[in-house]
Amino acid sequence: MAAHRSPPALGSATIATIAREVGVSAATVSKVLNGRSDVAAGTRARVEASLERHRYRRRARRPTGPGQIDLVFHEFGSDWALEIIRGVETVAAAEQVNLVLSQLGGARRPPPSWLERVIARRPLGIVLVMCNLTEPQRQQLRRQAVPVVVVDTDSASAASVPTVGSNNWNGGLIATRHLLELGHRRIAIISGPPDVWCARARTAGFRGAHEEFAVPVDPDLVRTGNFHLDAGYQQGMELLAAPNRPTAVFAGSDLQAMGVLRAARQLGLDVPADLSVVGYDNLPLSAWSGPALTTVNQPLRDMAGAATKMLFDLVRGVALPTSRIDLVAELVVRESTGPPRRP
Amino acid sequence: MAAHRSPPALGSATIATIAREVGVSAATVSKVLNGRSDVAAGTRARVEASLERHRYRRRARRPTGPGQIDLVFHEFGSDWALEIIRGVETVAAAEQVNLVLSQLGGARRPPPSWLERVIARRPLGIVLVMCNLTEPQRQQLRRQAVPVVVVDTDSASAASVPTVGSNNWNGGLIATRHLLELGHRRIAIISGPPDVWCARARTAGFRGAHEEFAVPVDPDLVRTGNFHLDAGYQQGMELLAAPNRPTAVFAGSDLQAMGVLRAARQLGLDVPADLSVVGYDNLPLSAWSGPALTTVNQPLRDMAGAATKMLFDLVRGVALPTSRIDLVAELVVRESTGPPRRP
Repeated sequence: MAAHRSPPALGSATIATIAREVGVSAATVSKVLNGRSDVAAGTRARVEASLERHRYRRRARRPTGPGQIDLVFHEFGSDWALEIIRGVETVAAAEQVNLVLSQLGGARRPPPSWLERVIARRPLGIVLVMCNLTEPQRQQLRRQAVPVVVVDTDSASAASVPTVGSNNWNGGLIATRHLLELGHRRIAIISGPPDVWCARARTAGFRGAHEEFAVPVDPDLVRTGNFHLDAGYQQGMELLAAPNRPTAVFAGSDLQAMGVLRAARQLGLDVPADLSVVGYDNLPLSAWSGPALTTVNQPLRDMAGAATKMLFDLVRGVALPTSRIDLVAELVVRESTGPPRRP
Repeated sequence: MAAHRSPPALGSATIATIAREVGVSAATVSKVLNGRSDVAAGTRARVEASLERHRYRRRARRPTGPGQIDLVFHEFGSDWALEIIRGVETVAAAEQVNLVLSQLGGARRPPPSWLERVIARRPLGIVLVMCNLTEPQRQQLRRQAVPVVVVDTDSASAASVPTVGSNNWNGGLIATRHLLELGHRRIAIISGPPDVWCARARTAGFRGAHEEFAVPVDPDLVRTGNFHLDAGYQQGMELLAAPNRPTAVFAGSDLQAMGVLRAARQLGLDVPADLSVVGYDNLPLSAWSGPALTTVNQPLRDMAGAATKMLFDLVRGVALPTSRIDLVAELVVRESTGPPRRP
């Protein structure tokens, strides 16, 4: 009986091995491998268990000829997405590999239909942005020898997936420290959605800088947004119209910062004389806003490029020295910050 | 002899027909069809002539399964490119077809290597932006039954290629008419590069509005740029620092308009009290600049969507009612324009 035989070396199993062990046809094993839905649930479970036991993998391929990689966004958000597309495209073009672009309409996990379509094409690899896979999806792709990397703008990915990110906590820290060093003591933060990790990390950095300077944080000044212009504007209007308004705002993203600039203009506040504003991301446009934004450079293009290089290493079977790289976030001081007015 | 036989119906020729007629192997005809370089020039010319004589076409396919379309930019320029990507992606996703994205590093014609790679993959169709094909490239793709459409931001495409554009002349006219109606008489234009047709068309519209109002155009106030921020800033600084400066600038693009806003700020000019500024494109950010830009809405996302729908009609063999559609450019009045100061 199969169970009594000593198992073959891990990873050396073929479809025939699996079919024999489970007692189904090779065609059935193929269907399971290809994510097809026309296999009975019980059979599928037995085949999957056998595939995992043997660590079944399709043979990896070299990126020759018109290969493709997939770049998957949870959604396209402004300039921000374009910076990442540019970073990935540059590396893919140098490898003479095509770039297949898609977005999940805001979802954080690709739907089952997505995986079926991907497996039918079998790209060389996949770059994910602001989204991730379920463990079964990851297993499926592993068996197909389709490596996955994550451009993690979110500080949220499981360590098991090779990831390039940037240090959001540090970014929040240096942005806030800059304002504290200028003499600000009432500093607001408008961070991203509370369920997004990078937003939490930046807020934690904001608190860290306050601790460093022994300045208490007023809970009224800690706000959240959606990283877009409208949230910066709305929170900015609330914060700046209040009687005890802050003298500085760390806006959590360049787009939110532009929303705050708009609120300040509408209320007749001069930036930076009446209000200092710090953004995050250093989008190309941030140098051109009125006034030019002081911001934290999140090296999106470099992050995307580094993740794509990682992906090609995986495609070639090169072992990665580490499964996570964080690039450095740096402060870029422009015109939107200055010392507070003397009271 | 072949030449004495009556020719088969146009478009019904097979590779075997062509090979017989020219007196070469079917493999040689295939090589020519696939754009391979290992065929003698004389042989290639005879095969190509025969293919054209017979109007040889591969059979068209329906977009089933994981088909792909290609989206090719001459380069990715800011938010502008992302609007087009969004328009194409929405239609492709609805068709369950993948989007392969590439850019030509600024070139206006794809290199020969590009065509080889495309033919090897044989996408359902191709959307071109700010670039076009040579006639031989077009023939090659026609034979492969790979249709091509152009998103024409440039008003420059040959009528023979199905195209979606917008009326740039009209856009230049309504932008300038708005300024003349406000009472401006010294109006500058910063258009795009002189060899780009849409820039010429917008300038012609600018002149048309002046004629309508019987206001002469000062040649010193007619400038060109590159559609990017830096050109708007440099030309803006020159125009606004001059003794007889204009009271309004039609900036030719939103990015150039933001550059002009920056120059105005630096020179201490208030917009719109001292200077009116009109952009072009209506990028998402233009509503959020300081002050919010009056601009001409170029419906980039809709243009890209309409072109992609056209492409899927061609893929399905649906005849197009017209080979060129121009969408309407509309004026969006915001805060950056107003009447000139009384002298």
